[in-house]
Amino acid sequence: MTVLAATETGREPTPSSPLAIVCGGGAFPAAVADAVGKRGRDFLLFAIRGFADPKIVGRYPHEWIYLGQIGRLERLVRRHGVREVTFVGTVFRPRLRDIRIDWRTLRYLPRYLRMQRGGDNRLLSFIARETEAGGVRVLGAHEVAPEILVPAGVLGRHRPSQANAAETALGRAVIGALGPFDVGQAVVVVNRRVVAIEAAEGTAAMLERVAAIRRSGRLHAEVRAGVLVKAPKPGQERRLDLPAIGADTVAQAAAAGLTGVAVEAGGSIVADANALVQAADAAGLFVLGFEPGREAPS
Amino acid sequence: MTVLAATETGREPTPSSPLAIVCGGGAFPAAVADAVGKRGRDFLLFAIRGFADPKIVGRYPHEWIYLGQIGRLERLVRRHGVREVTFVGTVFRPRLRDIRIDWRTLRYLPRYLRMQRGGDNRLLSFIARETEAGGVRVLGAHEVAPEILVPAGVLGRHRPSQANAAETALGRAVIGALGPFDVGQAVVVVNRRVVAIEAAEGTAAMLERVAAIRRSGRLHAEVRAGVLVKAPKPGQERRLDLPAIGADTVAQAAAAGLTGVAVEAGGSIVADANALVQAADAAGLFVLGFEPGREAPS
Repeated sequence: MTVLAATETGREPTPSSPLAIVCGGGAFPAAVADAVGKRGRDFLLFAIRGFADPKIVGRYPHEWIYLGQIGRLERLVRRHGVREVTFVGTVFRPRLRDIRIDWRTLRYLPRYLRMQRGGDNRLLSFIARETEAGGVRVLGAHEVAPEILVPAGVLGRHRPSQANAAETALGRAVIGALGPFDVGQAVVVVNRRVVAIEAAEGTAAMLERVAAIRRSGRLHAEVRAGVLVKAPKPGQERRLDLPAIGADTVAQAAAAGLTGVAVEAGGSIVADANALVQAADAAGLFVLGFEPGREAPS
Repeated sequence: MTVLAATETGREPTPSSPLAIVCGGGAFPAAVADAVGKRGRDFLLFAIRGFADPKIVGRYPHEWIYLGQIGRLERLVRRHGVREVTFVGTVFRPRLRDIRIDWRTLRYLPRYLRMQRGGDNRLLSFIARETEAGGVRVLGAHEVAPEILVPAGVLGRHRPSQANAAETALGRAVIGALGPFDVGQAVVVVNRRVVAIEAAEGTAAMLERVAAIRRSGRLHAEVRAGVLVKAPKPGQERRLDLPAIGADTVAQAAAAGLTGVAVEAGGSIVADANALVQAADAAGLFVLGFEPGREAPS
């Protein structure tokens, strides 16, 4: 998301040092902030303009930043005595108008621009590395708020069929095969056929595409068939980017005519599990958290 | 596309036996028919209703068939003394209303429906196998009309850059990795990032998606950057389905902001190479036929 650097390095985090939650869009920042607050840990949001929701941000101690304001971020880190940071929420590869560059940023720019040439993971690893080089520890959102991790097993009322298990296994194999290329956290499999593979477009756009292919009549399948499979890419920088699902994902999967959603347990996140399960139960879809490394039966 | 079966089997094709060109949509049926005609070989089209263009079909000896009319197809094969067949042109997975079933078809239906559960290649291999079991030899369109194969080297005025060569190599590697899953004949790589992977939607829809991602401002790249890479899937049934490009592909790639198109030489087809080169030259795009098995320099 952006690059943090503290002026003083090497000090251990202290209980009085607040956790900085650098937050983009969506429901995850509030879920993480609430979970951290529940543990009594001091925290504040560094909310990214153009991405974070002001209504959510206003509920917590916060500072607003623009993407790219590294100098300002360093001053905020110093002022608040921040030693640990977590990155939460959606930041699409930004439009240029959402970026503000300060003098400090210029130092990073050449390296940052080089990193743009590559997949998301390469970029995120760079951000984590640079942040830690500045003496601020990077924690995964799921490390500070483990309750957002999708648990193993079937969530909700509906269960995957044996065909769904085979579709899930195929989807996982495709995600695994794409790992070396830093692409593909999500795949749609219908009747053992790989119908869509996510790259830069995002899961919602991919599911819209499946719905369109279906409307065109070009997908021979029962009224409802197929699975959305999401899992971290092998070797992924998990602290900064885990696959996410929510009630909206379930609604999009239902609109695409799928029977369910399968994600890696402990390797995928959900901001509001209750809302997810309610949506899935109401839509008749299953939600499965499959165990990492263990192949689903096919 | 559909299943042919001759009643008499085991006879060698004779010069008087016409080649049947089972044809779907697009410009390839005419290109293949003209190439076959130029060689003096007798031929006729079995034109598929709803897919083949009546204006093209009308220029050649032909019979109309519906997808699924296996009984009718067997009668036509017998009546015309057909011993060899080639399948040319686009047949999307059909809408049910474009299919007519006759009594003979019912025999194939259970196996055919099983084959629907899987990728295109599995389905096409089944069609080739069933056709040959009926005593009719299946030839690739590129075998009866080698002039449609894309040659090795740079076609047209514009040349790929070194960055384009690296993007092409990455795209080829992704297509190779997806081979076992019977998916992915085409990939878009921009600045060494895999931006889109084709599954069931087709190349045109994938390129539209890249154009949309670009319009959204979410792809940091020069005004023009990136490559469309197409190649046969490893293990693909090449007689029935080779990746195709044309002037329209170049126009779509240009609209997606790409710098060029790279396809496997001898493993990809073009109906009108002159129109392709003219379109590429005018749009400022390169067209590269890369040699199979030889990695592009990265």
